Amino acid sequence: MNVNQEFGRDYLQRRIVTEFPLARHIGIVVESADDGTLVLEAPLAANANFKGTAFGGSLFSVAVLTGWAWVTRYLATLDVAADAVIQESTMRYLVPVQGALRATLVPPSTAQTEKFRRMLQRAGRGRIRLEVRIHQGDTLATEFKGVFAAVR
Amino acid sequence: MNVNQEFGRDYLQRRIVTEFPLARHIGIVVESADDGTLVLEAPLAANANFKGTAFGGSLFSVAVLTGWAWVTRYLATLDVAADAVIQESTMRYLVPVQGALRATLVPPSTAQTEKFRRMLQRAGRGRIRLEVRIHQGDTLATEFKGVFAAVR
Repeated sequence: MNVNQEFGRDYLQRRIVTEFPLARHIGIVVESADDGTLVLEAPLAANANFKGTAFGGSLFSVAVLTGWAWVTRYLATLDVAADAVIQESTMRYLVPVQGALRATLVPPSTAQTEKFRRMLQRAGRGRIRLEVRIHQGDTLATEFKGVFAAVR
Repeated sequence: MNVNQEFGRDYLQRRIVTEFPLARHIGIVVESADDGTLVLEAPLAANANFKGTAFGGSLFSVAVLTGWAWVTRYLATLDVAADAVIQESTMRYLVPVQGALRATLVPPSTAQTEKFRRMLQRAGRGRIRLEVRIHQGDTLATEFKGVFAAVR
């Protein structure tokens, strides 16, 4: 079993529902998780407001868990015993989301990833800035940027 | 009945649980809501991660609902038929929250409020920047800043 399988979709799904009780109420599903793509999804019904569009707190939760999942997976593949935590974030709500909340990680550059890896291997901790996007059809609906830290 | 009573704690509690299904799972309680203070709280258990500290998505949700509640209350007192929506936000996680998630609105300045009121009364819509803080004991744990719009 390679790391894509070992620390793939099932691994992240299990960790999210085990470690974040609220994720079950949000209905988080890890759609795909490999070296190329990371996508989390949640159904609209559990996360809608009375206007039938996604609640901002749910959009944030799906986005922050997508970033958390990327860091958690990366730590697992490197066999670094650390926890991913969010330190700061910005969120822009551009258009309402009227269907499933589908969050896609924008893959960090190789330079960013390498810097993060060096910090982890030297100090056992590190920080990385990640971007997550939620689309409504083809339109960018929500843009999340967050700094995640890996701490022991 | 004055507006503090009419659009106070019970009014906001009712609107939040009616309009945001996820707020029930988060366990949002409007602690106080009058012209001077606005405080929302949620229990740790439903919002904890496996480390026993508050999930970042729950902290965000409590904070954004506190801002939403301020705008919603303000619109009600002015009898303006508009909805409050979040447009953009920043969130800083300074120290972990290990107890109830208690969010306090930083009252906007009179100048800010007056500008918002003039926009609402002239155009039926407007925007205001609000700040919400979550404390862990006496320590500022989480700082939320968001721009809310009132739209018809």
